[in-house]
Amino acid sequence: MDNFTLFNPTRIEFGTGKEQAIGQHLADHGIKRVLLCYGSDRIKRDGLFDVIAKSLGEKGVEIVECGGIVSNPVIAKVREAIAQARDHCVEAILAVGGGSVLDTAKATAAGVRYDGDVWELFTGKATISSALPVFAIMTLAASGSEMNNFAVVTNEETREKLFIGSPDLFPKVSIVNPELMKGVSRSYLVYSAADVIAHSIEAYFTASVHPKLQSRLVESVINTVIETTEALIKDPGDYEARAQFAWAATLALNGTTFSGTAGFSYPNHAIEHSLSALFSVPHGAGLSVVMPAWMKWYCRRNPTQFERFAANVFGVATAEQGIAALENWFNKIGTPTHLSALGVKESDLPAIVENAQGNMRSFGIADIYTPDVISTILRSAL
Amino acid sequence: MDNFTLFNPTRIEFGTGKEQAIGQHLADHGIKRVLLCYGSDRIKRDGLFDVIAKSLGEKGVEIVECGGIVSNPVIAKVREAIAQARDHCVEAILAVGGGSVLDTAKATAAGVRYDGDVWELFTGKATISSALPVFAIMTLAASGSEMNNFAVVTNEETREKLFIGSPDLFPKVSIVNPELMKGVSRSYLVYSAADVIAHSIEAYFTASVHPKLQSRLVESVINTVIETTEALIKDPGDYEARAQFAWAATLALNGTTFSGTAGFSYPNHAIEHSLSALFSVPHGAGLSVVMPAWMKWYCRRNPTQFERFAANVFGVATAEQGIAALENWFNKIGTPTHLSALGVKESDLPAIVENAQGNMRSFGIADIYTPDVISTILRSAL
Repeated sequence: MDNFTLFNPTRIEFGTGKEQAIGQHLADHGIKRVLLCYGSDRIKRDGLFDVIAKSLGEKGVEIVECGGIVSNPVIAKVREAIAQARDHCVEAILAVGGGSVLDTAKATAAGVRYDGDVWELFTGKATISSALPVFAIMTLAASGSEMNNFAVVTNEETREKLFIGSPDLFPKVSIVNPELMKGVSRSYLVYSAADVIAHSIEAYFTASVHPKLQSRLVESVINTVIETTEALIKDPGDYEARAQFAWAATLALNGTTFSGTAGFSYPNHAIEHSLSALFSVPHGAGLSVVMPAWMKWYCRRNPTQFERFAANVFGVATAEQGIAALENWFNKIGTPTHLSALGVKESDLPAIVENAQGNMRSFGIADIYTPDVISTILRSAL
Repeated sequence: MDNFTLFNPTRIEFGTGKEQAIGQHLADHGIKRVLLCYGSDRIKRDGLFDVIAKSLGEKGVEIVECGGIVSNPVIAKVREAIAQARDHCVEAILAVGGGSVLDTAKATAAGVRYDGDVWELFTGKATISSALPVFAIMTLAASGSEMNNFAVVTNEETREKLFIGSPDLFPKVSIVNPELMKGVSRSYLVYSAADVIAHSIEAYFTASVHPKLQSRLVESVINTVIETTEALIKDPGDYEARAQFAWAATLALNGTTFSGTAGFSYPNHAIEHSLSALFSVPHGAGLSVVMPAWMKWYCRRNPTQFERFAANVFGVATAEQGIAALENWFNKIGTPTHLSALGVKESDLPAIVENAQGNMRSFGIADIYTPDVISTILRSAL
């Protein structure tokens, strides 16, 4: 087991009705004016906005609205949000939505406290030294962003999708009410399942040290995702399945499963970030395409762990059977497993390979993932 | 899944050499004078005290020593530590030891800030409103106290063993270096294994709602404890086993496994606390006696979960076989499974039953655990 530090000061408020106390949580932190970040107007149509506005109003917290955040969130929107936050002197950011909204909120929180252009925090030209406090009300379970200190944003001009991380970016309070997620479409449900599985397997397969305890925790998360996704496809109103799915998504990336693992990396995310930067594919859909292809290429490097995965997740004997079982499961639930399903053609591969090299550098794995290797993986996903 | 709040702000510093940075951690919190709580002089003989003193000295942190804390720590010692802390105006408490030392430190931290007698915080006569910051360097993995906000202390006059809990009692930083645990005796290793298993099964079996995800996490912890205990019996120098054992112990009681479970209680602890309050038996040894007896009495109330335990921990078919397998495993590793092994006789039962009623009340389960029930359970452990 590797040495590690685990420090995760996010307060999770999980369950029905928890959003009604958002005003109290902001008041507890002395917040009087907040930038409320969200995506579409759905939260206004379905009544969530009113619940939040009422709760904040009761505690005298003023709202500055910042709507229109899109999936695969973009740095232009972050810049706009920073300007709004500064103009109105907000004291905190409240994200209402999924990972894209929360990541925009985190980038905004850091950008407000940085004098240069916020993208410099992503490229490594500058580091985050402070951020406004961030609060979240989740309407989608997938990214795990609600209980970690990372954010991923796309620069639509340079076509780069990069991440930031800082101890200042842990949300102060994240509200995870599974009932707020019952409107998620079937497509986004299955993409989210792929996303959580991707978060789970990256360290599980790539870590140079992956203790058995941590492997067991990862398998607990993956098996829960598989089971609850199937339950939710049958019955989107199954609260228990929705809740366990949501908590599995949080646990997949809050430090619990990978504390003590060493030398792991995020190659699937590095390749997928290029797909969504270039083609705006849903992140989870990109991941379900990349994962089986990557696994086929990678499995000889860590055969024992792939056999473990095969046995403990799908009850099959060999590494190859385990990979096939995951791919079949993705096909069964209806998340894509080939680039063609994303509208990506063979002629697009050189551009993806070139773009992915930057991601490999930012994840520190460019030595393994050369252009040839990235190309090999992508070809097997055509 | 039940609604829950998860907030755990303890920073865990896990791994080799981490104790060398203790001075920095205290300095980061602005501490200039600390009460250093410990048990026997072993930490002086084995060099740990010197490492700590050097690290604190380098950061200008003055030490006030408070040694001689015993297993099943007593309130008299807490009162002594509070007096010392006040006399020397310490700004924090540093525990160096196992759960007993840390629980003494937590009780002291709360007691210093309370004007009345500290035992009133245990009996419910008063509540904790503030505490000195607590830091820990663990030399035993068992209690989970390093990453939670509870402490258990015995009042040797009234023969009560009670607990306190408060958000103020989370350690600020807990250092868990498995190398510091390699001197733990075989006896204390197996008692610790029983303790961690007890922490794991209380909610697992008694919760009115125990989601499958959480059950999987608990089984991950228990299977790891079984595996690593056996490895450590064979080779006490097995660092990997020691590390996974330690991390399993922390996870068993830091909120991860029981968030979202509902209506659970601690009947095994409630009975065991009477055994250790009256007979000073090691806590883990008391638990390995109580657990099989309690399981035999309780299993008809939750047959599905007991069958799950049987299958997923011991690979056997029935609830009864699962209980027998756990009892056999306790026998195999050498932690007691009968009261006689603790020197407790049938004639002692009335006193235990009477004492345990207070614990049942403090755990809120006196309606189920009547004197007759407690007596029945204890009789089957004779």
